[in-house]
Amino acid sequence: MSESWRLLRDLEELVKIPIYGVVGVARNGVLIYATTIEGTADIYSRDLKTGEETRLTKKGIYTASATHKSDIVVYGVDESKGRELIKLYTVNARGGESKPLSDLPPRRLTGLAWDGEKVIVSLVGEGSFEVWKIKPNKTQELLTRHSKPLAVTSTSDRYTAGLVWESAEAWSIFILDNSSGELREYSPRKGSMNRSPVLSEDGTKILFASNFEGREGLYVADTERLEVGRVRTRFRDHIADDPVEYVAYDWIDSGSIWFMGKRNGRVSLYIDGRRVNLPRGFSMGGKYYDGKIYLSRSSLTSPPRIVEVDVDSRRWTTLYGGRIANRRIRQAFARSYMTNIESFDGLNIPTYIVESRYAPKPGPTVLYVHGGPWWEVADYWEIIMASLVVSGFHVVAPNFRGSTGYGEEFRRLDIGDPGGGDLKDIVYVARWARDSGLASKLAIMGYSYGGFMTFLATVKEPDLWDAGVAGAGVADWEEMYELGDQLFKQFVEMLFAGKRELWKDRSAINFAENLKAPLCIIHPQNDTRTPLKPVLRYALRLSELGKTYEMHIIPDMGHTVNKVEDILNLVFPAVRFLTRTIGMDSGTGNGKSPE
Amino acid sequence: MSESWRLLRDLEELVKIPIYGVVGVARNGVLIYATTIEGTADIYSRDLKTGEETRLTKKGIYTASATHKSDIVVYGVDESKGRELIKLYTVNARGGESKPLSDLPPRRLTGLAWDGEKVIVSLVGEGSFEVWKIKPNKTQELLTRHSKPLAVTSTSDRYTAGLVWESAEAWSIFILDNSSGELREYSPRKGSMNRSPVLSEDGTKILFASNFEGREGLYVADTERLEVGRVRTRFRDHIADDPVEYVAYDWIDSGSIWFMGKRNGRVSLYIDGRRVNLPRGFSMGGKYYDGKIYLSRSSLTSPPRIVEVDVDSRRWTTLYGGRIANRRIRQAFARSYMTNIESFDGLNIPTYIVESRYAPKPGPTVLYVHGGPWWEVADYWEIIMASLVVSGFHVVAPNFRGSTGYGEEFRRLDIGDPGGGDLKDIVYVARWARDSGLASKLAIMGYSYGGFMTFLATVKEPDLWDAGVAGAGVADWEEMYELGDQLFKQFVEMLFAGKRELWKDRSAINFAENLKAPLCIIHPQNDTRTPLKPVLRYALRLSELGKTYEMHIIPDMGHTVNKVEDILNLVFPAVRFLTRTIGMDSGTGNGKSPE
Repeated sequence: MSESWRLLRDLEELVKIPIYGVVGVARNGVLIYATTIEGTADIYSRDLKTGEETRLTKKGIYTASATHKSDIVVYGVDESKGRELIKLYTVNARGGESKPLSDLPPRRLTGLAWDGEKVIVSLVGEGSFEVWKIKPNKTQELLTRHSKPLAVTSTSDRYTAGLVWESAEAWSIFILDNSSGELREYSPRKGSMNRSPVLSEDGTKILFASNFEGREGLYVADTERLEVGRVRTRFRDHIADDPVEYVAYDWIDSGSIWFMGKRNGRVSLYIDGRRVNLPRGFSMGGKYYDGKIYLSRSSLTSPPRIVEVDVDSRRWTTLYGGRIANRRIRQAFARSYMTNIESFDGLNIPTYIVESRYAPKPGPTVLYVHGGPWWEVADYWEIIMASLVVSGFHVVAPNFRGSTGYGEEFRRLDIGDPGGGDLKDIVYVARWARDSGLASKLAIMGYSYGGFMTFLATVKEPDLWDAGVAGAGVADWEEMYELGDQLFKQFVEMLFAGKRELWKDRSAINFAENLKAPLCIIHPQNDTRTPLKPVLRYALRLSELGKTYEMHIIPDMGHTVNKVEDILNLVFPAVRFLTRTIGMDSGTGNGKSPE
Repeated sequence: MSESWRLLRDLEELVKIPIYGVVGVARNGVLIYATTIEGTADIYSRDLKTGEETRLTKKGIYTASATHKSDIVVYGVDESKGRELIKLYTVNARGGESKPLSDLPPRRLTGLAWDGEKVIVSLVGEGSFEVWKIKPNKTQELLTRHSKPLAVTSTSDRYTAGLVWESAEAWSIFILDNSSGELREYSPRKGSMNRSPVLSEDGTKILFASNFEGREGLYVADTERLEVGRVRTRFRDHIADDPVEYVAYDWIDSGSIWFMGKRNGRVSLYIDGRRVNLPRGFSMGGKYYDGKIYLSRSSLTSPPRIVEVDVDSRRWTTLYGGRIANRRIRQAFARSYMTNIESFDGLNIPTYIVESRYAPKPGPTVLYVHGGPWWEVADYWEIIMASLVVSGFHVVAPNFRGSTGYGEEFRRLDIGDPGGGDLKDIVYVARWARDSGLASKLAIMGYSYGGFMTFLATVKEPDLWDAGVAGAGVADWEEMYELGDQLFKQFVEMLFAGKRELWKDRSAINFAENLKAPLCIIHPQNDTRTPLKPVLRYALRLSELGKTYEMHIIPDMGHTVNKVEDILNLVFPAVRFLTRTIGMDSGTGNGKSPE
């Protein structure tokens, strides 16, 4: 029998490594950041002058926002045990009592902006999407309703900006009058993909990314007349670097901007077009304040840190995080790299590989399928992948067709065909994993869309896998659609491009008899994105068929993770299962032990 | 966040402590015993003269039998991943290849006897119970069918003896002619409870326990004329000790017998009526060979050992087991004792308590409900209870009405009322646990009938518990009945004394809305006694109601445990859950750590 306690000891060390994210900077230079350092994702403040630190929340937060115009920090808490019904609160950036922002009932949020005077939020309503204007302790007002999903991204005195999901291929910008509630939809070209408009402080301009001229670029438009022009920068490093996507951007001072560009899963920061030489890796965004940019940075082998970048000197320093104190964990990461693997139709599938120092070569390997599907595995800290590597598995993580980060054309390839071409990509990557000498035994594992893919791949390609781990997966699109709220119903429609006739073919529950590999099912109890119910029915079906599976339902948890304990509840059963089914103890032999 | 790895480390040490049981002695003095020392319950042999040891099986066994008249050992293997469909094999006592005993398809076994020439087995058939006669590598013959459950217990040249379940209160003896298949049912008094007849070697007499004269006693009857008489012994220690039940008995030499008597959860061995001073504790049976008796012995704080008792000198020596090498585990057991707790109607409920040295007083406590219900918690090694004690919980284990060990009248008190009076007993014991200063927080936990009781107690008495752990439980008697085979259908009928109108009231699924405490559900995937399906439906119902629960389905496991890994799969999720909900980390404070 294996000694699982060593695995658990290392995983408990691993998940304790704190995650860091920058919320913003409040009035008088108080940095607001989020971290899991005390077990839940909570917000803390740091006086940038004195270094004084204060913990602001204690129960775990879902979202937060700060602005240099106010001492008040706005944050949302899921008080529905993971069902993502969010209640909004305010707290002073220097600490003290939290207060409810309004008496609106908790709802699913799609966006939030806070300018020091009012909070503008977009919410999922019954049969429509709503935008509210809330002044702390004062008024709350429904600004507008819309039949399509809306997401608020920025607000100023007069206008609020955000996105409208027209379809899976086309997102428009909206500009909403904060007084009249009048909403204008804007797209530089019909059918183009536009992302996250950011208003200038005076509200006269929006900065956004768009593919309306072909490849994605950064643009500025006039809020009134909507005249659009490409962003001009003083330096042109990004032209040479040729980013595929702009993941974040904002104004530094009137006219000048900073932005982040992504290419091959790595993100670079540019100030007025000039690259900052940050540690190799990934960032999701940043906040500018008083000549500095604050951001979170990580890579596949290096946990998140908060970095302060000086705009003038482009020098950076680490404020928090980024270290792995434990030697066993630090040494587990033998090598990480990206390679292109050719799929059935000649398409290159950009695939990240992390080799474990605790597995031989060939050795037990996990093909990790990312969620989304409009998301990617890139050079960022991925706790599931890290858990596998530390536990003695190599990880192969393909960016199958439909992934972000490789251009809009690549991303669109799964629309109307989820579980079709993308599953074939995964099959080709699985074969590569064996043929290249990396994998002795091979499991498939994923969460959310990756859980869906695990369910489907293990019944559609049953001979490829020695085991499967499906986290928060979809086993039946029809029942998932029925149980989904307005947002997730629209998501399913967009993903399948309305082809409901495909639902049956892409639902593992209709092919359960094909399953061969042992399956480990892990599901949050209160998941409102990929609901538990159809997965329980799938378990019933597997029982009837006499298939080998195990199942772990995690209590009081929803689709998103915001407790360190939840991560452990996800990864430990998975790692124990994998150790038993494909690990060194399972008969692969001659492995090196993590000890 | 807790450091669960320490719990897991100790549990992995704990479950590795081997369990030992005596199978019998084969020809020429080869002791056959079963042990979990290599991870599965397998059989081994030991030449009693030379001490030479041989492992006979490797895949885990379900049952085994040996006789001094043959070198062949007969054993059964569950090849149905826990569904208890048993295939029979033979193997030489000195080792070698195993061979299938016959080509009968795997079936559920109720009894097996092997006299060196033939195997007599009772099996569960479709709508009836069957007895087969099988000669290794030769013939197989259906001897008889019966509408009531039969269990073979002993065989000789001419006759086979066993039990017939007439009702929950009355078991008769049957005597079956091995040639003609003629079956005679025998009861010294109609409605009496008779147990495990053992044939003398020449087949002329049966030795059995019966309550036909009032209290249980040992009797001998003539196989032909069925004239019955009380067993006479040379010594009379047992008269003074006054056992309530006779758990095992057999002939030593013609006319003289050994037996085991139970009282207050402890078992004594008597040779011709003279007590052997074994270590305090419990034994389930023993085997006589050549002036020695071989038996397994354990207590709540001392793991099983195989003991050899010399019949003449009554001296005993330990052959295997009985030791706890690990100091942290050894020291966990602070104190074990039995006390009587008065229930609602004045009935005394004999209750075992094991205090943990790693919990304060009052401290986190688990009320452990045993399975059966016609079984008991006694002074034997109970791995679930031991796991709790080692993990820092006190354990209170009541022998509620219906338990064995306290007389037939006490046992009968739950017939026609399961989940009624016995649940009230549990409520009174729960109050005692708090009032006596033992429990700060209190959980209820059990397996099988104990799992049923946990489901029911947490919805019928929701305010009593801080948490519940239901292993292999029953949440819906109606569906359980539908899914049960012939044996379990009859079991349910007997337990409820035919009162089907009670099923609804005693099924937690009909009261799920009352649940308050967090619930941890653990269930074997292929359980054919308490099937998974109604429990999955219960989980669905709890999800709909927004109740907090977690669930762990254990793969390739049935109702009975025969792998060490299965024990860990049962107890570790339970202990982690209890640590979080009622443990020292949960807010009880001031606890001593197991470290």
